[in-house]
Amino acid sequence: MFGEEYDVIVVGGGHAGAEAAAAAANMGSKTLLVTMNLQTIGQMSCNPAMGGIAKGQIVREIDALGGYSGIITDKSAIQFKMLNKSKGPAMWSPRAQNDRMRFAEEWRLALERTPNVDFYQEMVGGLLIEKDKVVGVKTSLGIDIRSKAVVLTNGTFLNGLIHIGEKQFGGGRAGEKAATGITEQLVDLGFESGRMKTGTPPRVDGRSLDHSVMIPQPGDVVPEKFSYLDTPVLTTQRDCHMTHTSALVHDLLREGFDRSPMFNGRIKSIGPRYCPSIEDKINRFADKDSHQIFVEPEGWNTVEVYVNGFSTSLPEDVQYKALRSVKGFENVKFFRPGYAIEYDYFPPTQLKHTLETKLVQNLYFAGQINGTTGYEEAASQGLMAGINAHLKINEKEDFILQRDEAYIGVLIDDLITKGTEEPYRMFTSRAEYRTLLRQDNADLRLTPRSFEIGLAKENRLKRMEEKEKKSDAFVSFFKETSVRPEEINPILDSVNSALVKQSDKMFKVFSRPKVTMEHMLQLDAVSGFVEEHNLDREVMEQAEIQVKYSGYIEKEKHNADKLLRLEGVKIPKNFDYSKLKSLSYEAREKLNSIQPVTIAQAARVSGVNPSDISVLLVYLGR
Amino acid sequence: MFGEEYDVIVVGGGHAGAEAAAAAANMGSKTLLVTMNLQTIGQMSCNPAMGGIAKGQIVREIDALGGYSGIITDKSAIQFKMLNKSKGPAMWSPRAQNDRMRFAEEWRLALERTPNVDFYQEMVGGLLIEKDKVVGVKTSLGIDIRSKAVVLTNGTFLNGLIHIGEKQFGGGRAGEKAATGITEQLVDLGFESGRMKTGTPPRVDGRSLDHSVMIPQPGDVVPEKFSYLDTPVLTTQRDCHMTHTSALVHDLLREGFDRSPMFNGRIKSIGPRYCPSIEDKINRFADKDSHQIFVEPEGWNTVEVYVNGFSTSLPEDVQYKALRSVKGFENVKFFRPGYAIEYDYFPPTQLKHTLETKLVQNLYFAGQINGTTGYEEAASQGLMAGINAHLKINEKEDFILQRDEAYIGVLIDDLITKGTEEPYRMFTSRAEYRTLLRQDNADLRLTPRSFEIGLAKENRLKRMEEKEKKSDAFVSFFKETSVRPEEINPILDSVNSALVKQSDKMFKVFSRPKVTMEHMLQLDAVSGFVEEHNLDREVMEQAEIQVKYSGYIEKEKHNADKLLRLEGVKIPKNFDYSKLKSLSYEAREKLNSIQPVTIAQAARVSGVNPSDISVLLVYLGR
Repeated sequence: MFGEEYDVIVVGGGHAGAEAAAAAANMGSKTLLVTMNLQTIGQMSCNPAMGGIAKGQIVREIDALGGYSGIITDKSAIQFKMLNKSKGPAMWSPRAQNDRMRFAEEWRLALERTPNVDFYQEMVGGLLIEKDKVVGVKTSLGIDIRSKAVVLTNGTFLNGLIHIGEKQFGGGRAGEKAATGITEQLVDLGFESGRMKTGTPPRVDGRSLDHSVMIPQPGDVVPEKFSYLDTPVLTTQRDCHMTHTSALVHDLLREGFDRSPMFNGRIKSIGPRYCPSIEDKINRFADKDSHQIFVEPEGWNTVEVYVNGFSTSLPEDVQYKALRSVKGFENVKFFRPGYAIEYDYFPPTQLKHTLETKLVQNLYFAGQINGTTGYEEAASQGLMAGINAHLKINEKEDFILQRDEAYIGVLIDDLITKGTEEPYRMFTSRAEYRTLLRQDNADLRLTPRSFEIGLAKENRLKRMEEKEKKSDAFVSFFKETSVRPEEINPILDSVNSALVKQSDKMFKVFSRPKVTMEHMLQLDAVSGFVEEHNLDREVMEQAEIQVKYSGYIEKEKHNADKLLRLEGVKIPKNFDYSKLKSLSYEAREKLNSIQPVTIAQAARVSGVNPSDISVLLVYLGR
Repeated sequence: MFGEEYDVIVVGGGHAGAEAAAAAANMGSKTLLVTMNLQTIGQMSCNPAMGGIAKGQIVREIDALGGYSGIITDKSAIQFKMLNKSKGPAMWSPRAQNDRMRFAEEWRLALERTPNVDFYQEMVGGLLIEKDKVVGVKTSLGIDIRSKAVVLTNGTFLNGLIHIGEKQFGGGRAGEKAATGITEQLVDLGFESGRMKTGTPPRVDGRSLDHSVMIPQPGDVVPEKFSYLDTPVLTTQRDCHMTHTSALVHDLLREGFDRSPMFNGRIKSIGPRYCPSIEDKINRFADKDSHQIFVEPEGWNTVEVYVNGFSTSLPEDVQYKALRSVKGFENVKFFRPGYAIEYDYFPPTQLKHTLETKLVQNLYFAGQINGTTGYEEAASQGLMAGINAHLKINEKEDFILQRDEAYIGVLIDDLITKGTEEPYRMFTSRAEYRTLLRQDNADLRLTPRSFEIGLAKENRLKRMEEKEKKSDAFVSFFKETSVRPEEINPILDSVNSALVKQSDKMFKVFSRPKVTMEHMLQLDAVSGFVEEHNLDREVMEQAEIQVKYSGYIEKEKHNADKLLRLEGVKIPKNFDYSKLKSLSYEAREKLNSIQPVTIAQAARVSGVNPSDISVLLVYLGR
């Protein structure tokens, strides 16, 4: 049926699969997206939101690289918030609520509009492999489709098993079939597989809630957006609402604990620590008698509501009874109960930095199959796998982002170096150079790199260069322009900052903690410059951050450079650590298994100590 | 979990289920719609179009009764055509192409906006029955939900089995699970069940087609619409395209016949005669070496295309190879192959005119479960089942449409009286009073009846009354106003109609075959009347039909009245025909099984002869 060979086949149409297909195709690969259901491309399986702390930065990075998640999010957003705005800019994290139907439709249409992306609806039941190299997929109907590379993004579908109370049944998502065949084949090939667990809360009828007793959670007064391109900015928004569980609710939930698959041993796999079920929260934080619940609308028009914070696999009658005791939920009607799902994953230490598997050439894994959780984590891996699959089959250099370049770099390096025993979620704390990895500068960090490999288009690069040029000019202006005491002192006085006695460079005054761009704009010279150069909000923000945080940024760049030297020390391929008896036993074992590419990576392997690194450096002649 | 009892539970969210839920709820019943997947409410499982010959009339009737199908169709249409416009008005049949995603979304939102409709996502695995009466449903997770009535609209999901070539697998639709449990329970209760088959063509990538070699099929220049209410009229439309199969295509298809589940005996059930697979057409019409194929876009923006006329369950490689030989399809890319599906149905002779089952009280069946095919047939049954479920539990009179009142009446009477051995589709030829059952007068026929039972709202009745008043006045005007020879003769001359010698009533001249409203409007008196009374297109069309077809209409009304007298002759409940030995053996058997309510219905039972009817009339004292 498929006489022609594809360059890249992507299995799965979720966040990872959709980004992988778009990236490979936009770079020029003839790409096929195979999914069990073409109508569920870009489904938000869990909450109707994108971004959040560290995750929002990832979406900005995806956008800066030329991925679609930011654009789709902007087009389907119903609310936007910049989280952590009161903290330093490294913590600022964009987050959007989305219209679930719109989000999926925009993804589908975006992929349809991407030249080189073909579609096929069927379950993939296995891979075609020749001599340790993947050469295509086999569908469950037995159709062979050949390709030069394959990206697997199976999400929770591989042998998915849904749990609600004491009941369990096969399924990849509520109402959808599980996928079978792939795990078994990969294990036969020598892959190690494991089980993970995740969960989702009930969906309820918004008409049955009393929003008036909850706390409204509106979007930002001046909403921003995700994409660096010209996507729409929200002009109206929908509120979320907050309410709380109570001691009574917890008691009602506890009544079902003996029937909980989490507690009675039926679910053995580990779930996402930082996205726990409500029963988990009650269990782990027994002293807390209240937890937050965020009531999130599922779209502009639908009455369906997502009960964020109430993920659970307790029996449905327990879910119902307990939720009815939550303030505002007294008359709640369920659309469907929450549930837990167990699925197969493959410990990601079996991957290279490109997300290619070590065992099978040209086979890439992205998303939950690698043990991660979260739309953003999945989408970014899909993007990187799609890019690297294209580069590999065109015999071009790998595209690897370093830990000081992108959260995506941190994510992948963590995964393949340390592996993960529980669903891996990104946090700002995982990034040692988070001051560098801000949401405001993802374009400056990544667009030139993506342009170089042919993914980011020229218009994207031009916009970024324009922004850089203008903000640099503005920073230079602050460095070069002096301000007189009589001009600046009224401002300093208004924020209780020490007055100056003589003229000083604006940069110095502006660096003071309490002085903001808004204050600086009160100076005629500054507002004149802004007007003359037609500077927009984004440029001014960039310049402000460069001025006010220059110290931190410089310091972190210095640290990164130091480590970069270790990144430069390559370790030969298939290095046999067992012969280095001066290494600790654990280090030998772990390093043999992980096969780090550089000394820096070796240092990040858990169980490897600084003394082991010294041994290695000596051995490698440094 | 569901502490409260519902009035009506509707199982299934397709065309039948959605209309059933809307109708019951709009009449005031507390209604629950239970579906396996809330995201697939209102899915167009097969072609992206509503209406067509006889079917378009049904949609107009649904709208006239206060159902939603017409409104949803108008809101999501991408093209509109009034079919058979060159024939008499009884044959005029509206048809729309639809945006598949928009259609489903509009249904979902329309139901959400309907007070009294609740939603629940889960598979229903059985019914709760107490003493021959249904009292609710049991979900597959074991949740009991109680109600006073249940409407089953399971479509192709009951033990659905999908066939493609020699492969077969369980499923309710491509990519969706089958439903189990209900058939088995109903059979245990004494229901007779059977298997039917239907099929669907491949979906393909519109970008891979050469539309330039096909024949464009545009919509009407002045598109009309389905709903009698204020729904939008299309201002732009998308074209369909026509192409043809060829002898070569047929040869290529024949190569797969030995692997066809239709021909090798694997599929035993009967499919829709008038919607046959392409292999069926080749087989049955062996002398024809070309069949039409209509290329229908699936929406405003998507590239997905529905290949109407190419329904098939041949092996996918055969489908592919053959379709590639169709003009314009040389480079076609498949989104998914066509397939056949077998599913359980219940011979509809087991139902009353209300669609309530004879065996279990307050249990209603609607749609494919009754052996019908088609969105419109399903939707209308859903509507009627929803209405009657509400009426029954409120101890109100049944709502039954007669054969001279509505296609819906013909449909249901045919089903329950004659049963069906193959998927039942509506045709104008099935309606003996089709001159009365026109698309233009569905509101006049049905809106008052629906208003009476509390479904159609006052605004709908008012519009209909206004239309009736104005068109009646216009007809009277034609009857009462004379036209002079010097005024009318130029017009008659222009259409080669005999000239008149003296003044005559306009009605008489207008009745002539070649004289149209357009001609009449050339008369100052007529255009003056139109302007004075502000008559719109709909009113003028209604008046024109009343004038030009008055003879036919009167005659058919007379025939209907004659038969209506037989409809008035009721047969006692549970009448024992076996004691009437003068009835033919076949008649006794069939009548005992069908238990017709009236003599007229008895006359329509297949195998019952006029002599049997005479016997019955004598016995009943007529």
